[in-house]
Amino acid sequence: MADFTLYCMAQSGNAYKVALMLNSCGADWEARWVDFFNGETRTEDYSRDVNVMGEVPVLVHGDLKLSQSGSILTYLAGELGQYGPKTVEEEREILRWILFDNHKLTSYTGTYRFLRHFTKSGDTPVTEFLGGRMHGALAVMNQHMDGRDFVAADRPTIADISICGYLFFDDEIGLDWDQYPHIHAWLQRIKELPGWKHPYDMMPGHPLPE
Amino acid sequence: MADFTLYCMAQSGNAYKVALMLNSCGADWEARWVDFFNGETRTEDYSRDVNVMGEVPVLVHGDLKLSQSGSILTYLAGELGQYGPKTVEEEREILRWILFDNHKLTSYTGTYRFLRHFTKSGDTPVTEFLGGRMHGALAVMNQHMDGRDFVAADRPTIADISICGYLFFDDEIGLDWDQYPHIHAWLQRIKELPGWKHPYDMMPGHPLPE
Repeated sequence: MADFTLYCMAQSGNAYKVALMLNSCGADWEARWVDFFNGETRTEDYSRDVNVMGEVPVLVHGDLKLSQSGSILTYLAGELGQYGPKTVEEEREILRWILFDNHKLTSYTGTYRFLRHFTKSGDTPVTEFLGGRMHGALAVMNQHMDGRDFVAADRPTIADISICGYLFFDDEIGLDWDQYPHIHAWLQRIKELPGWKHPYDMMPGHPLPE
Repeated sequence: MADFTLYCMAQSGNAYKVALMLNSCGADWEARWVDFFNGETRTEDYSRDVNVMGEVPVLVHGDLKLSQSGSILTYLAGELGQYGPKTVEEEREILRWILFDNHKLTSYTGTYRFLRHFTKSGDTPVTEFLGGRMHGALAVMNQHMDGRDFVAADRPTIADISICGYLFFDDEIGLDWDQYPHIHAWLQRIKELPGWKHPYDMMPGHPLPE
């Protein structure tokens, strides 16, 4: 049995945040595929035994069962001694950007992509609204990355690993990087991290059955 | 000048999270009203000098200028020695629920209320979508609070203070607490915290001019 077991599926940008962290740190981990598209996370068993929040990722490490990617990343930075803060100022800055990601970027981007790519909703008032919010958050990120190499320190941290979670699905989201050149340049730096792979090459369940 | 200055307005549940923390800890704080409804947070000055994320709350403490309510609450728990974790397990549990709040509850609830109450959008596909997500998060919370007094420990913590941020605007959101009895009972306990007031009685800018 591996040191870490990650409940995940290849389509989840939130699970990817944890998978990328584990891979990039060279941790001994294995995936436990979750049948999200057939409703596994919404079952009573999953809610009771795995995660009351009804979500992936969940990380199992010994007796611990952790959820919420930002909380898991914080835990792993401590356990694995990589991508964490070195000062209290960095600790605050990392947490601030992880919260921004959860509150303003991933919340809208993940949902927008889900409707657009998986439910094939086409353009609707809902995708228009979510897309507007997503682009607002991306504009903030692009401005923040102007003149910076990484999000919250002079090196990559768990803030970078959190924020990039959905952005390698750019084709499915329909992003045009000419709009956000500083984000695009930063994503190239993320791709150079040790152990980087695209989410579809790092977790099980891709492609979905027809 | 007070020890803490909070950029805020009475209508913001996110600013309220910080105001409630400061008030309940008996901190020496003052409000700096932000003219959100006339666009102050979207100005270049605000982005450059106050918060690149274009949001309230921002807390000024000495030379520090902090943003993102979850990050500010974590900072204040350390500075003021109240509502913080006592163990690493509690620290993880608190962070997990603050992230859940930002990712799944406040992100949809705040936006739903804004459209419904302030823009008077009426029922639209967008409010239907956001409302569905909000109710999904409330159902998770209600289940979690069944048999518990507080969210993440045997006493109130910054996780409680974060999650309650928008829930005292229940009339504006149109919440029926019969649906969520465990959340409702918990909110009564929050109201008993020292220094508790409704957001409209704690921060400036209410009511809005006609």
